[in-house]
Amino acid sequence: QGTRDHAPAQAALRDRLLSAVVSCFKRHGAAAIDTPVLELRETLVGKYGEGTKLIYELQDQGGELLALRYDLTVPFARYLAMNKITKMKRYHVAKVYRRDNPATTRGRYREFYQCDFDIAGQFDPMIPDAECLKIVHEILSDLQLGDFVIKVNDRRILNGVFAVCGVPESKFIPACCTVDKLDKIPWEEVRSEMVGEKGLSPEAADRIGEYVQLHGGLDLIERLLQDPKLSQNKLAKEGLGDMKLLFEYLTLFGITGKISFDLSLARGLDYYTGVIFEAVLLQQEKEHVEELVSVGSVAGGGRYDGLVGMFDPKGRKVPCVGVSIGIERIFSILEQRLEASGEKLRTTETQVLVATPQKHMLAARLKLISELWDAGIKAEMLYKKDPKLLKQLQYCEDTGIPLAAIVGEQELADGVVKLRDVATREEVRM
Amino acid sequence: QGTRDHAPAQAALRDRLLSAVVSCFKRHGAAAIDTPVLELRETLVGKYGEGTKLIYELQDQGGELLALRYDLTVPFARYLAMNKITKMKRYHVAKVYRRDNPATTRGRYREFYQCDFDIAGQFDPMIPDAECLKIVHEILSDLQLGDFVIKVNDRRILNGVFAVCGVPESKFIPACCTVDKLDKIPWEEVRSEMVGEKGLSPEAADRIGEYVQLHGGLDLIERLLQDPKLSQNKLAKEGLGDMKLLFEYLTLFGITGKISFDLSLARGLDYYTGVIFEAVLLQQEKEHVEELVSVGSVAGGGRYDGLVGMFDPKGRKVPCVGVSIGIERIFSILEQRLEASGEKLRTTETQVLVATPQKHMLAARLKLISELWDAGIKAEMLYKKDPKLLKQLQYCEDTGIPLAAIVGEQELADGVVKLRDVATREEVRM
Repeated sequence: QGTRDHAPAQAALRDRLLSAVVSCFKRHGAAAIDTPVLELRETLVGKYGEGTKLIYELQDQGGELLALRYDLTVPFARYLAMNKITKMKRYHVAKVYRRDNPATTRGRYREFYQCDFDIAGQFDPMIPDAECLKIVHEILSDLQLGDFVIKVNDRRILNGVFAVCGVPESKFIPACCTVDKLDKIPWEEVRSEMVGEKGLSPEAADRIGEYVQLHGGLDLIERLLQDPKLSQNKLAKEGLGDMKLLFEYLTLFGITGKISFDLSLARGLDYYTGVIFEAVLLQQEKEHVEELVSVGSVAGGGRYDGLVGMFDPKGRKVPCVGVSIGIERIFSILEQRLEASGEKLRTTETQVLVATPQKHMLAARLKLISELWDAGIKAEMLYKKDPKLLKQLQYCEDTGIPLAAIVGEQELADGVVKLRDVATREEVRM
Repeated sequence: QGTRDHAPAQAALRDRLLSAVVSCFKRHGAAAIDTPVLELRETLVGKYGEGTKLIYELQDQGGELLALRYDLTVPFARYLAMNKITKMKRYHVAKVYRRDNPATTRGRYREFYQCDFDIAGQFDPMIPDAECLKIVHEILSDLQLGDFVIKVNDRRILNGVFAVCGVPESKFIPACCTVDKLDKIPWEEVRSEMVGEKGLSPEAADRIGEYVQLHGGLDLIERLLQDPKLSQNKLAKEGLGDMKLLFEYLTLFGITGKISFDLSLARGLDYYTGVIFEAVLLQQEKEHVEELVSVGSVAGGGRYDGLVGMFDPKGRKVPCVGVSIGIERIFSILEQRLEASGEKLRTTETQVLVATPQKHMLAARLKLISELWDAGIKAEMLYKKDPKLLKQLQYCEDTGIPLAAIVGEQELADGVVKLRDVATREEVRM
């Protein structure tokens, strides 16, 4: 349940999508790493907020207690700490596992690919953070998925907001998780979850509401820097200062047109400590052509400066920032688009079919195809002793093989091969 | 335990190795598929002989009872049956899981990659089987792993041998598993396991011993076809006839020099029904330079005509033959070889570092690098506001970046960039 096989056409489409993403990661100088699908349970516990209950655990069959990885970020942090690496730019494309309620029509599965790019190391502020946003912008533009917006916020700003609204520090993370639902449910429901389930005072919730419904650009950052209450909060001030710097860098990258500083963005995971962001695709609503509505998140990430330290025996911190591309949702969109277009993706790369018009030609075909393979040419033949020529040509048409290398009695006697262009039916002897 | 992280240098080497294997599979016209790492437990149980106890099971957290896949063959058969596919040539490169005793120095892990190529469908005998052996030959030759031999046998011949030696049919599979150990332990030990643990009569074991210690080529096949007892056994006769045909095709492929018909080859898995094979690397023994000894299996496979039918509600069979490349052992060999050579693999593909000789040039660098990225050029810069030029050039040398695009006050004023060849120190303004 919640998993799927990929048939050849889907595997080919996925390959194409993953190469586009990986080539962007390589363009930004990242190296690949790989980590096991299995992690120690203790590595994963307590890193994912409400997600922890969705971790797949392995049966205790003796030995270590194991679980399937929930994302690629925690294994990356574990890897850095274990190997005492303090500086690294890496990408990782692999499957992760979540015992979630699958919504497979919207591309939500229990086993799914993540494509992560992260920069670890102590650097000057906001330079790596800006690059992560540039990467999201490049990938979403390259894939021509239509209009999108990248929402940006900072955990320090959110925590500052909570503090000045009178929320006790112990409730920052639960409050964050509730705010994060603002893209799916209206403010009234978020408010009542805050007051009810999360135990915030109604006054605090109302004050939070005034902030988290704000979004804008540099102007909003400036305004909040002047906000009498927020500007008194150290964390918020730091966050707003960095946000201003980030917008400066994004202006140099020429991508601020797609960036929205959005105070409702919170992200559910525990480990974020600074900038957070999320890219959503926009679509024209059928009834209101002018209005663009979000059709879901396709990339997200942020800064997590404390995570590596949790795996280091001495608690040594390695600041990190990274982005994860939500390949599954993008895949669903491309799949539907391909289906609608009627275009058929080739699932093989075969260049030539070795064929014969006569019986008793198996030996000749086997000899010829063997020569082709040894010369690095992608070649197939039908696995029949005496196939009909029509069937062989039909196979070329069905699978998109452009050429047929035909060997019959005459060709064998003359020491030649007849090469046929399947589409034009042109033939040359060679 | 028994798993490992791949650091960038290892990931780069693995990438290179996997692409060599995949490009061979594509040369033979295979399409890719992908299946989940998780399978239903019931799908895996009873397919792997003594391996079944090594399956990783997931904890029962509600819902289906799951396990991690043990190989890629059973999931492929499940996929074919589930989708009622009767004909397919596919490859699949992915991780599999076995709770084995890891021997990590010899490249044996609990999580490891398999690279499988399989041909499903009802075809004329031995044509797809011969192609599988051709593929093993191509890959091992391409990778320049040194001398190797591909041992070939047929489960029908083995079963025929057991039958004429007086083994009851119920003991064919256990006997097979024991014979399979002949490459690791001497005949005397195999014999005593047969008589002891497996309950065969000493006479039967001795008779088996006469057959399973034979190996050779076409001559041996001919001799066994004349064997008074074996030639009376229907299964053995079929197997030997097909083996003869296989050698005919392999002769046309020009690869019989590396093929050995070896009656000791049994393969441990339950599901094989016909031809089986295994490739082993040969190495000169230090003391006896003329003698080549096996250093372990690097590929294996065979025919499994009954497996798909086990997953079909009506038991419809789809004949299959396939090969699995043992990428981990090959990886270990290549890794050791690379280490010995002192060669350093680049782990990134960055073409140019955007650098500056002066302070206050961050904005110029960000603008330039953004232009390069947008033009598809692989570019990096140091994440510092004011890095020293020497540090920047040092970074190029450390990571193998061939070019530095230098922008200083003068270049900015002139509207040019200084492009420096890091190795030769040559510079051009452009």
